[in-house]
Amino acid sequence: MKRESLKKLCESAKRSSEPLALVSSQDKNRALRAMAKAFLRGADRVIRENQKDLKAARAGGLAQSLIARLTLDKAKIKKIANSLVSIAGLPDPVGRVISSVRRPNGLVIKKVRVPIGVILIIYEARPNVTADCMALCLKSGNSVILKGGSEAFHSNGVIFRILSEAAARCGIPKGVFQFITTRGRSAVKSLLGFSQWIDLVIPRGGEGLIQHVAKISRIPVIKHTQGVCHVFVDKKANLEKSENIVVNAKVQNPAVCNAMETLLVHEAAASKFIPRICRVLGAKGVQIRGDEKTRRFFPGIRKATQKDWTAEYLDLVLSVKVVKDLDEAIRHIQKYGSHHSDAIVTQDKKAAAVFTDSVDSACVFVNSSTRFHDGGEFGMGAEMGISTDKLHARGPMGLEELTSYKYVVLGSGQVRG
Amino acid sequence: MKRESLKKLCESAKRSSEPLALVSSQDKNRALRAMAKAFLRGADRVIRENQKDLKAARAGGLAQSLIARLTLDKAKIKKIANSLVSIAGLPDPVGRVISSVRRPNGLVIKKVRVPIGVILIIYEARPNVTADCMALCLKSGNSVILKGGSEAFHSNGVIFRILSEAAARCGIPKGVFQFITTRGRSAVKSLLGFSQWIDLVIPRGGEGLIQHVAKISRIPVIKHTQGVCHVFVDKKANLEKSENIVVNAKVQNPAVCNAMETLLVHEAAASKFIPRICRVLGAKGVQIRGDEKTRRFFPGIRKATQKDWTAEYLDLVLSVKVVKDLDEAIRHIQKYGSHHSDAIVTQDKKAAAVFTDSVDSACVFVNSSTRFHDGGEFGMGAEMGISTDKLHARGPMGLEELTSYKYVVLGSGQVRG
Repeated sequence: MKRESLKKLCESAKRSSEPLALVSSQDKNRALRAMAKAFLRGADRVIRENQKDLKAARAGGLAQSLIARLTLDKAKIKKIANSLVSIAGLPDPVGRVISSVRRPNGLVIKKVRVPIGVILIIYEARPNVTADCMALCLKSGNSVILKGGSEAFHSNGVIFRILSEAAARCGIPKGVFQFITTRGRSAVKSLLGFSQWIDLVIPRGGEGLIQHVAKISRIPVIKHTQGVCHVFVDKKANLEKSENIVVNAKVQNPAVCNAMETLLVHEAAASKFIPRICRVLGAKGVQIRGDEKTRRFFPGIRKATQKDWTAEYLDLVLSVKVVKDLDEAIRHIQKYGSHHSDAIVTQDKKAAAVFTDSVDSACVFVNSSTRFHDGGEFGMGAEMGISTDKLHARGPMGLEELTSYKYVVLGSGQVRG
Repeated sequence: MKRESLKKLCESAKRSSEPLALVSSQDKNRALRAMAKAFLRGADRVIRENQKDLKAARAGGLAQSLIARLTLDKAKIKKIANSLVSIAGLPDPVGRVISSVRRPNGLVIKKVRVPIGVILIIYEARPNVTADCMALCLKSGNSVILKGGSEAFHSNGVIFRILSEAAARCGIPKGVFQFITTRGRSAVKSLLGFSQWIDLVIPRGGEGLIQHVAKISRIPVIKHTQGVCHVFVDKKANLEKSENIVVNAKVQNPAVCNAMETLLVHEAAASKFIPRICRVLGAKGVQIRGDEKTRRFFPGIRKATQKDWTAEYLDLVLSVKVVKDLDEAIRHIQKYGSHHSDAIVTQDKKAAAVFTDSVDSACVFVNSSTRFHDGGEFGMGAEMGISTDKLHARGPMGLEELTSYKYVVLGSGQVRG
């Protein structure tokens, strides 16, 4: 797409965001249910387009795990449609009064949730994200510009067309959904300069892409970047719970950002726990890389290098380190972690409190798996992703995180003295 | 300052922010009161340093209004000290539980306020901002890097030294307050690249500086930019209230961002209101620039040009336009305004609701003066300034807006299924 077409597309998104902000919850929910129905009706069309992407992916030698993410079948289509319906059922954040105070001079000052405006999402090759983002942005009253991974180009395109046509039939302003048809990153640079029309950029996916976006963007960015997540097994940890949590955090879905990448073990627990957990994880196909002390307790594993402490493996690989106390565990996490999801396993309430106070991560867990760091598990309904930034939104970005606020001040002629 | 010294300074701020985040409210408040006392004791020293800035300012021909802002006398010093004491009296946002839910699996998910980390503030030549920012950042648990206007260099320096020494004597970690000693903008470019140590940049002041910062920063920016504020006098406005509000919004303090710059008058009210308000404002020294219709109702005033609709005069100048209805007023504000503070005067509740819903500004007023858009007037205590952005903080930035949050999840061994 040429720069001029991109401009027009962004202007249209901005213009449409004004009437969209005023659409009632009822009308938005009706549109979301109609979108779900249209999507189910269009299942064959979706699968046909998805086949084009899959064919290219196989020809291009895309990794099996990425092909699995890319594949749409009837079951996945049903799941996506259900997600649209469930978003229709969530409370509408727009117009919600966050606070209301009456000042001594009689002014009533209300803080009210409003849409952000226009959101650009740049995402990996996961077609379900197209539908989720369209639904979340519609419900939160935002126009959305979709720039999906080129490997999912045909799948994203057909999902976009079916859903935006269904929404338009329900009276949703045309222009609130925009789809970038240029493959690759060529359009991204232009878009990131259009701060007069786009209010927020959400890049998801690989670290390289996200850093590139953050570097060149003239528009505020909320990054959804990597998780180098830790579990720390304290000296007062229950070892059975520790085993369950460590196994779950590493093995249940190793390819995601809230999976554990490094296990830290208190030296007082190491002689018992390290041989036990290494055997269990080994049996589950996990390759372990240990520091020197770990290898003393469980010889034969590979030696961890400096690079392992910052690695996001997204795979059945784990680095393990023995630490001398809680403080060393915290310092390791602060230094090498990515401030995403970190857990302590302990029966010692004081140690748990020091850990949750001192570890500066989006989500800090006590006696539970890092895998729970997820909008659905938090009870927020769907999510745009998990923010690793500290401004505006941290952790799961749901409907509320897709809003801003304004102050509405009601008076009866007051002037400032 | 060389790039290497700036790096060290930022690293020190980051390192110190970790222990600062754990300092108790009591200890922070004790430090703030000690800072206020030390400041009063150092009044003569402050005035001596301020004289150096004033001498240079007069020699350089700085505008009288800016010299007035720059001047520190005993009364202003008292006021600054009082502000420190009042910040000590405000509730501490850090550690406050925003929400807490128990999930069906027994997990307790708490959303807890935490400091942002390190904040860089780039501000105009107002020495009181130095003290306010140090106090607000300390109270909210953030390290702060101060880059004040070079015209206030000596004044800022002495305030910084007195307050940071007093804080250090109370056990506040050294390094939480940092002062950029380079004059001019040379250091800013380096600082804006240090995203590993600085979490947030707040630029205040002129549009040029703010756009420059937003353009080159690698760090999230919350802009505190200009106010092109409107008052719309509706056809159903009470004209006495309208007069009071318009006069207050324009005349009470024309040099500030929440002062009115454009008056919009419904054509049904124009024949009565325009001659009346033009006479009153004229008597108060306001120069009026009107559109054609306005000049028909009050001949002899200067003609408004296209540039007037986007002008932030910050002076006793006002542009006036007659609009044919509420909708034209809203469209004018959306097109030419800066989304800062906009008011409607009307007795018609429906018109007021349409206005507050449709005008996308940080603060929208009904029957009250735009001059109330201020942290103090909103009952928030002191403020860092007024954000004109929509992400993270919009409107007055007080203590709460200087925090982020983290999720703390408390379990008893839960794993994800």
